[in-house]
Amino acid sequence: MSQRIAVYPGSFDPLTLGHVDIVTRAAKLFDRLVVAAIHNPDKTSLFTLEDRLAIMSETFAREPKVEVDTFSGLLVDYLKKKQSFILIRGLRAISDFEIELQMALMNRRLSPGTETLFLVPSVEYSFLSSSLIKQVYQSGGEAPTLVTPLVDRLLKEKYRQNEQ
Amino acid sequence: MSQRIAVYPGSFDPLTLGHVDIVTRAAKLFDRLVVAAIHNPDKTSLFTLEDRLAIMSETFAREPKVEVDTFSGLLVDYLKKKQSFILIRGLRAISDFEIELQMALMNRRLSPGTETLFLVPSVEYSFLSSSLIKQVYQSGGEAPTLVTPLVDRLLKEKYRQNEQ
Amino acid sequence: MSQRIAVYPGSFDPLTLGHVDIVTRAAKLFDRLVVAAIHNPDKTSLFTLEDRLAIMSETFAREPKVEVDTFSGLLVDYLKKKQSFILIRGLRAISDFEIELQMALMNRRLSPGTETLFLVPSVEYSFLSSSLIKQVYQSGGEAPTLVTPLVDRLLKEKYRQNEQ
Amino acid sequence: MSQRIAVYPGSFDPLTLGHVDIVTRAAKLFDRLVVAAIHNPDKTSLFTLEDRLAIMSETFAREPKVEVDTFSGLLVDYLKKKQSFILIRGLRAISDFEIELQMALMNRRLSPGTETLFLVPSVEYSFLSSSLIKQVYQSGGEAPTLVTPLVDRLLKEKYRQNEQ
Amino acid sequence: MSQRIAVYPGSFDPLTLGHVDIVTRAAKLFDRLVVAAIHNPDKTSLFTLEDRLAIMSETFAREPKVEVDTFSGLLVDYLKKKQSFILIRGLRAISDFEIELQMALMNRRLSPGTETLFLVPSVEYSFLSSSLIKQVYQSGGEAPTLVTPLVDRLLKEKYRQNEQ
Amino acid sequence: MSQRIAVYPGSFDPLTLGHVDIVTRAAKLFDRLVVAAIHNPDKTSLFTLEDRLAIMSETFAREPKVEVDTFSGLLVDYLKKKQSFILIRGLRAISDFEIELQMALMNRRLSPGTETLFLVPSVEYSFLSSSLIKQVYQSGGEAPTLVTPLVDRLLKEKYRQNEQ
Repeated sequence: MSQRIAVYPGSFDPLTLGHVDIVTRAAKLFDRLVVAAIHNPDKTSLFTLEDRLAIMSETFAREPKVEVDTFSGLLVDYLKKKQSFILIRGLRAISDFEIELQMALMNRRLSPGTETLFLVPSVEYSFLSSSLIKQVYQSGGEAPTLVTPLVDRLLKEKYRQNEQ
Repeated sequence: MSQRIAVYPGSFDPLTLGHVDIVTRAAKLFDRLVVAAIHNPDKTSLFTLEDRLAIMSETFAREPKVEVDTFSGLLVDYLKKKQSFILIRGLRAISDFEIELQMALMNRRLSPGTETLFLVPSVEYSFLSSSLIKQVYQSGGEAPTLVTPLVDRLLKEKYRQNEQ
Repeated sequence: MSQRIAVYPGSFDPLTLGHVDIVTRAAKLFDRLVVAAIHNPDKTSLFTLEDRLAIMSETFAREPKVEVDTFSGLLVDYLKKKQSFILIRGLRAISDFEIELQMALMNRRLSPGTETLFLVPSVEYSFLSSSLIKQVYQSGGEAPTLVTPLVDRLLKEKYRQNEQ
Repeated sequence: MSQRIAVYPGSFDPLTLGHVDIVTRAAKLFDRLVVAAIHNPDKTSLFTLEDRLAIMSETFAREPKVEVDTFSGLLVDYLKKKQSFILIRGLRAISDFEIELQMALMNRRLSPGTETLFLVPSVEYSFLSSSLIKQVYQSGGEAPTLVTPLVDRLLKEKYRQNEQ
Repeated sequence: MSQRIAVYPGSFDPLTLGHVDIVTRAAKLFDRLVVAAIHNPDKTSLFTLEDRLAIMSETFAREPKVEVDTFSGLLVDYLKKKQSFILIRGLRAISDFEIELQMALMNRRLSPGTETLFLVPSVEYSFLSSSLIKQVYQSGGEAPTLVTPLVDRLLKEKYRQNEQ
Repeated sequence: MSQRIAVYPGSFDPLTLGHVDIVTRAAKLFDRLVVAAIHNPDKTSLFTLEDRLAIMSETFAREPKVEVDTFSGLLVDYLKKKQSFILIRGLRAISDFEIELQMALMNRRLSPGTETLFLVPSVEYSFLSSSLIKQVYQSGGEAPTLVTPLVDRLLKEKYRQNEQ
């Protein structure tokens, strides 16, 4: 059987330990895992695409099966380019679930054969989201057990900059 | 018994086959169905009110019971103007459900006697929304089985224009 | 346009004011409303079919548009017999919603053209169910503002009988 | 046992009778209740912080256990300042529930020992939100049974001003 | 201010560390906490009432504020007997939420002034239930990190007995 | 990389086209897929274990990657026996989701490294369940587009037998 490649798309703005957890789990399931940061010029992000990719590359440097990449445009076109038909998504809570279902069905319709696999993160990350993390740091807090040391440092710099 | 008129309000930005499905179903239930595009100057829409109405008129031209219209201000005031007390809404998924319930109860409070009827769209449209459609076309994709040919063409023009 | 008949099926074991509320609302929408108690010999009910029908008949005696009836077997077969294609269901909370959606889609598949309309009960009945009512009376409580005087009396007799 | 102080944080933009209901309930549970309006300069609100506090102060003037206050920054830091470890939140519907759970778990992580207590509002306010209220008044409606007379008056002034 | 007593009712069939977690949290909020096992002769339980109470007593022996008790009949009657108006419930996930809301509103209707407080368990217990625990032991598994050593031992005995 | 084996456990009482859909999708993702019918002597099923296995074997006879099997006891023990750490589950609607999440987290706790992958069935099966199918046939209906011809025939025989 030929190599099996899965793609884990996301904003990763910024990467949390919840994302890292999903990457570690998904990498065990397939031969290669592409972690792909969405580049959407119409949507504002806290971190630039470059910063997001740098964080991801640093974090997964020692995971031989993991490739860090970026894409814009239609996700299913990117999948084809990567010779993959497998999308990975983490399922946290209910509110995610419906939008994820919508997306999974739409991607299948746009490109029949596309499969979205939902993985369950470790329970301590089941209520974690990038936006919650940003909110904490913006309010002057920190959450070093929920992000990598690099992200922790960058978030502090980010919001300290903003203050000045 | 006098004529029974129902009103199906929405943004219709743009009309999808999910909306068309609900219109067809609701038209069978009552003597007349007013499909009413919300005109909200404070909210940005992809299509102008004129475009949205033109799409709707073209689509329902051969449905003798369907009237295309627009309204602004309080929905219950518009209902009274139309001599109706019946609102039609399509129920897709859970996330819709709570906001729809909130709205239905508020409309009843603002104008006792107002009834909101929730209809179930055909299963192939149960995860469809105008915003998902816009996202697909904006990313360079197309979904000709989920919108009318006119909407498909207009969405392509829209986003091709934006690119230039 | 010919007479429009809707059917409101349910266990009504027993009828609550939540059901009465839905009946009153639905009766305004159509020419006739058949309130149909399910007769399912495989399912145990607190009240016999006869008792449930007697309660319903007494309660809707003065509603000229309301007919009380019973059915067994396939609901869509009963609909045809009643020359109706319209099902009425009350939507209380989320947990209802999915099973109701399942049923609505199955009924449409079994008999294309069947429409299920979901109505929103008055807010004071939005968390009410027959089983909750039975639980209260069984524990020695009473809920006279949530059931008719007849049901209140019968529930008290029922559980007093059981005690002896 | 020393005095027990609870904090009820929120935007209160504007205060609704749903909030008042929760305040009345929570005040019975503890020795003191601080109702604390979030001051978030990055988020636009309809009413200024001053107006929101004035409304709250007027509304709770005769509640001896209730203190009206404001905070910015991290909620758990404010809790410590107030010598409290108890947060009060009203639980309306499902959609609230997940975000509230996320916040409760994050606050506990940021400051172990923090407890969030969810209270159930009176059923007539179970589908009420400040944003729904604003929407109604903005569309030219009014909801005098869902807000205090002061808020009703201010909302009318607000949107009448906007019209001119 | 007089002593504040809260009641935490449940089946506790058997007690899990999720329940213990809620008890520990609730005990910090009030002067006394009654943990009350429901005695419902109509419902089969794995453990007898005596066993359930023995487990609870052993577990909370060193919690001076915690009282272990049992009740049958209407919960609000029991509350009055205990001179309490405060119910404690743990909120795990969505599916709980609606039934809990229903119960909270019914209890308030049966006895105005009754308040139900929902607490959030520690995240590692957020998907734990007594029935899941029973299922695991029944299938020959064990979950010593989710129950007390006593419950772990009794569950093993229980299902070993059944096998013979 | 060594062979990757996934296990799809379920009651399959009886197999529906929704299950077949998931099997087809999952078989593309891994080298081998074991479809494993739960044998639980404490739970009554409509079809005997033998019948369920016969249906499954007949249905997947031409799928070289699919193995039909049965298990009892702890699912994670069965997984080990099959040298697999991958569980497959279909995700239909919200109500499934929480129980599935609970199970996935429990299985991971019982056997760290176990991953549960949730797949999305084709949209026409998204509201389908074995129990709904049984209900339809029991009421005298049939759903030949939702089950295989064999299951359709067996269900008719089953309920015709019961009638006599």
